[in-house]
Amino acid sequence: MTTGFSHVSAPTRYAEANGVRYAHRRFGGGTGTPLLFLQHFRGGLDHWDPAVTDGLAAHREVILLNNAGVASSTGETPDMFDTMADNAAQFVDALGLARVDVLGLSIGGAVAQELALRRPELVRRLIIAGFKPRAGEVEGTAPDMIEVATRNEVPTLGDFLYLFFEPSETSQAAGRAFWERRHRRTVDVDPLTTKETMVAQLTAMEEWAQQRGERYSELARITAPTLVVNGRRDIMIPTINSYILAQHIPNAQLVLYPDSGHGSIFQYPDLFVSQAARFLDAEHPFT
Amino acid sequence: MTTGFSHVSAPTRYAEANGVRYAHRRFGGGTGTPLLFLQHFRGGLDHWDPAVTDGLAAHREVILLNNAGVASSTGETPDMFDTMADNAAQFVDALGLARVDVLGLSIGGAVAQELALRRPELVRRLIIAGFKPRAGEVEGTAPDMIEVATRNEVPTLGDFLYLFFEPSETSQAAGRAFWERRHRRTVDVDPLTTKETMVAQLTAMEEWAQQRGERYSELARITAPTLVVNGRRDIMIPTINSYILAQHIPNAQLVLYPDSGHGSIFQYPDLFVSQAARFLDAEHPFT
Repeated sequence: MTTGFSHVSAPTRYAEANGVRYAHRRFGGGTGTPLLFLQHFRGGLDHWDPAVTDGLAAHREVILLNNAGVASSTGETPDMFDTMADNAAQFVDALGLARVDVLGLSIGGAVAQELALRRPELVRRLIIAGFKPRAGEVEGTAPDMIEVATRNEVPTLGDFLYLFFEPSETSQAAGRAFWERRHRRTVDVDPLTTKETMVAQLTAMEEWAQQRGERYSELARITAPTLVVNGRRDIMIPTINSYILAQHIPNAQLVLYPDSGHGSIFQYPDLFVSQAARFLDAEHPFT
Repeated sequence: MTTGFSHVSAPTRYAEANGVRYAHRRFGGGTGTPLLFLQHFRGGLDHWDPAVTDGLAAHREVILLNNAGVASSTGETPDMFDTMADNAAQFVDALGLARVDVLGLSIGGAVAQELALRRPELVRRLIIAGFKPRAGEVEGTAPDMIEVATRNEVPTLGDFLYLFFEPSETSQAAGRAFWERRHRRTVDVDPLTTKETMVAQLTAMEEWAQQRGERYSELARITAPTLVVNGRRDIMIPTINSYILAQHIPNAQLVLYPDSGHGSIFQYPDLFVSQAARFLDAEHPFT
């Protein structure tokens, strides 16, 4: 299927499942498996980088999703990533898709892990950007991370430059360029996420910080070939967590980008798209 | 310059510098900066993977080198990587090249680091596969690693399958495919490296294990953009060392491949070549 739409032009659509009306956008096209994007803390449909979404949409349909309760989706934001994963699965089922690739950024990476664990038949390949395993490492987290991420009703450029990018001139410039791209869409924009969503997502993060069984043992059950990416110094989710993910997920490649942080895929969109597209396109993964 | 030669056909040539006759081969061509290959423990000109060398030779000249004292080169193998780096620099100077890219595998990765530190103007970009910083981490090294790597006068397929690959079926099969490719060259083959070379290289490894100044502080002075790669579980040089290199070299991207070890670039030659070529070809690194 080829939609003819792009990041800025794709209309917001709705799909109903279990009483929730899921706001989403579909664009791009080609022969690749559809790629489902799972968004970061407090983020909605408008908070991706068009250079990433359109880049990956060149050879497959991409699907941006507001999970239950998030922005233009109805329902309540769950306070567990498990439940968010079940919601995402119900959304994919409602679209009638038997199998998707999944890209999860930040907390979207937790939802993506749970989705791969709970509905393995649904997830062909997995990309986890800037996140951690359950009970991951916290050393290296900026002490004011939560404060900055929650202090403004609408997170500002300054908040993003601090949380998603490095203090270096080059990374800050890349952050500003991302911010410009992120605002290119001017019609049919998504409403803000609510304080309720923020609180529920924070609660889910707290739950995710708790160990369940042997530490990292769940990762061994992820059967989907996985690409783990992050920036060299992520002050939100310390970068060593990406290393740990790739050490424990049975079939995972790790890529860490220089001079970057939590938003590395928005700092190196072209490089990331080329690596992700090769990973997704290969008939046998990692060839 | 385009040579018309490939891995199997390039004649062994000699370049003289400071009394040493350096055996080397040049092949491939194109507009890229020439890429110098620095070989692993006990390895010579014939011990690269043609899928890697020819793959990278598609858009640049590649230069395989036997460092001083190694196989068909004359002179003595030094017992310090510093000196090996000086020798490699003298060889590059003797070829009349003002600037090269450098790919160091295993101990070649130590020589590459020292070369980038001692002659920064000579090294445009750096690739370090399967190695560690000075005074790197040793936890995770197979206790019988040195024994297996030194026990046979001619290292066997079995030695390589154990040292360079994972025990998994897929990795072992990739190791056998590498071994087949490695033996495709049948004319003008390189003599074996000597026991003296082996002992000198072991001594260099012992010296490299010693801290010099603040741990890892030297890495901050590497100015060349760097690509660090390894397999997920390297039993010769534990994989965490690749993470440490990429954390401390100021402008470094890390790639770790799944289901693989010390010889990851020989297990995923096509994927590695695509990632390395993009890294080398980009006008600005990491774009």
